[in-house]
Amino acid sequence: MANPQKQFLIFLGKKIRQEREKMGVSQEQFGKLAKVHRTYVGMIERGEKNITLYNLKRFADALGLPVRDLIDF
Amino acid sequence: MANPQKQFLIFLGKKIRQEREKMGVSQEQFGKLAKVHRTYVGMIERGEKNITLYNLKRFADALGLPVRDLIDF
Repeated sequence: MANPQKQFLIFLGKKIRQEREKMGVSQEQFGKLAKVHRTYVGMIERGEKNITLYNLKRFADALGLPVRDLIDF
Repeated sequence: MANPQKQFLIFLGKKIRQEREKMGVSQEQFGKLAKVHRTYVGMIERGEKNITLYNLKRFADALGLPVRDLIDF
């Protein structure tokens, strides 16, 4: 995942972390809301995983945002 | 993939097909541009596959659009 083409996954992860922190919830609490494991939340926030659109939708739903608001690339 | 929660994959696929047709290229030609197999282009356009963000970026690059322009949900 050191591929520079995957830089956008880093941007996405930062945006998700920022929005989660705005909600005032931990990765563990957020994982329960999005129905994913807390370690998966961490991997996504660090841009380590190539998320599928379906899981991105679950994250967006848990954040109460449309998917497009998480995407700026 | 009959899951109604995955309806947004159908929307995404329709948008990709529309943009590809605007470019005037076949699925086969588009697959070469995006570096994916033509059958994969068809599956994505029909909303049959849960695309990863990395592949969505490849599609967007081949269409000359930012990813956020393909997402309306």
